Amino acid sequence: MYGLVDREALLAKVRAQMHDKRYRHTLGVAESARRLAERFGADPDKAELAGYLHDYCKCWPVEKMRDILVRHDMPRELLEGEKELWHAFAGAIVIQTELGVSDPEILQAVRYHTTGRPGMSLLEKVVCVADYIEPNRDFPGVEMIRALAEQDLDEALACALGGTIQHLIEKRKTVYPLTLLAYNDLVSRRDAQGGV
Amino acid sequence: MYGLVDREALLAKVRAQMHDKRYRHTLGVAESARRLAERFGADPDKAELAGYLHDYCKCWPVEKMRDILVRHDMPRELLEGEKELWHAFAGAIVIQTELGVSDPEILQAVRYHTTGRPGMSLLEKVVCVADYIEPNRDFPGVEMIRALAEQDLDEALACALGGTIQHLIEKRKTVYPLTLLAYNDLVSRRDAQGGV
Repeated sequence: MYGLVDREALLAKVRAQMHDKRYRHTLGVAESARRLAERFGADPDKAELAGYLHDYCKCWPVEKMRDILVRHDMPRELLEGEKELWHAFAGAIVIQTELGVSDPEILQAVRYHTTGRPGMSLLEKVVCVADYIEPNRDFPGVEMIRALAEQDLDEALACALGGTIQHLIEKRKTVYPLTLLAYNDLVSRRDAQGGV
Repeated sequence: MYGLVDREALLAKVRAQMHDKRYRHTLGVAESARRLAERFGADPDKAELAGYLHDYCKCWPVEKMRDILVRHDMPRELLEGEKELWHAFAGAIVIQTELGVSDPEILQAVRYHTTGRPGMSLLEKVVCVADYIEPNRDFPGVEMIRALAEQDLDEALACALGGTIQHLIEKRKTVYPLTLLAYNDLVSRRDAQGGV
């Protein structure tokens, strides 16, 4: 995927975009994504790289992210929704245009790591779940998702996305419709397979 | 809306479609809908009538409801989703075609009483909230919705729909997307008005 020099150059770039805590989280996601990829048969190098890149824009000013999204014709629904979602869509654009990442699987894994979407690829699921369970994460329910992620990536993801929807409603915030569609998709497929 | 004789004939028809408990619930919704309509300025007669009619098909066999929905080209999303939602959409069709109810406000209030939808009319909100809070209802959180419905119909509805979404996720069921859009719509409008 990249040699040692490239990797260090890339990490230096990532490091420069964010504060310490966010960088520790980033390293944690890369590590967890590699482990999940090995467990469930995704490409470990791509998973690790997507982990390093997933929050590239997270600490950027919202105006800068909004400009990028507007210039790239992102849907009104996104621009009018919660700003917490912008970094993922802006990030996928920036790592392509500024860092030259061209692998569509990695770009999609970064783009959908927060919202999810119906029909997620294995790599998308790996990065999304890694973002929830990386070692620095500590929120009610994280142990349940970690335990599920030992056995069943889809169930871990359904639990994670479902929990996010419940949490947002608890806080009386809007829920990005794509996240519900991602959750519904996982539950429908499991029901169609006769899962529990 | 209807004379005394018509009302009794209509109630006899409604009574014949359902078991005792569902009929007690129906009378409760009609009563609560009238009260909410008086409180928030909807038409009390229409609210009461929509209450009587809202669960007209609830106890019908699912195959019969499915036939009606297929014949009336209801969306695939509905037919593939939870069967619990079918009675509302089938009901709106049946009360129009078999009982001759033609008032579009009443038909829409019946159609969307379970799912909700973005941009609900006052009458639709009244019937939807009445369905949650009628005197026979007893579920965790009902007292909170009843208390909100004394003051703020939109907040009561957001709380009710939000609670339903949370409950469905708790049970690992799919959530009909229209219900999330209805919830998001209420929260967005409240936020735009600077509400709490």
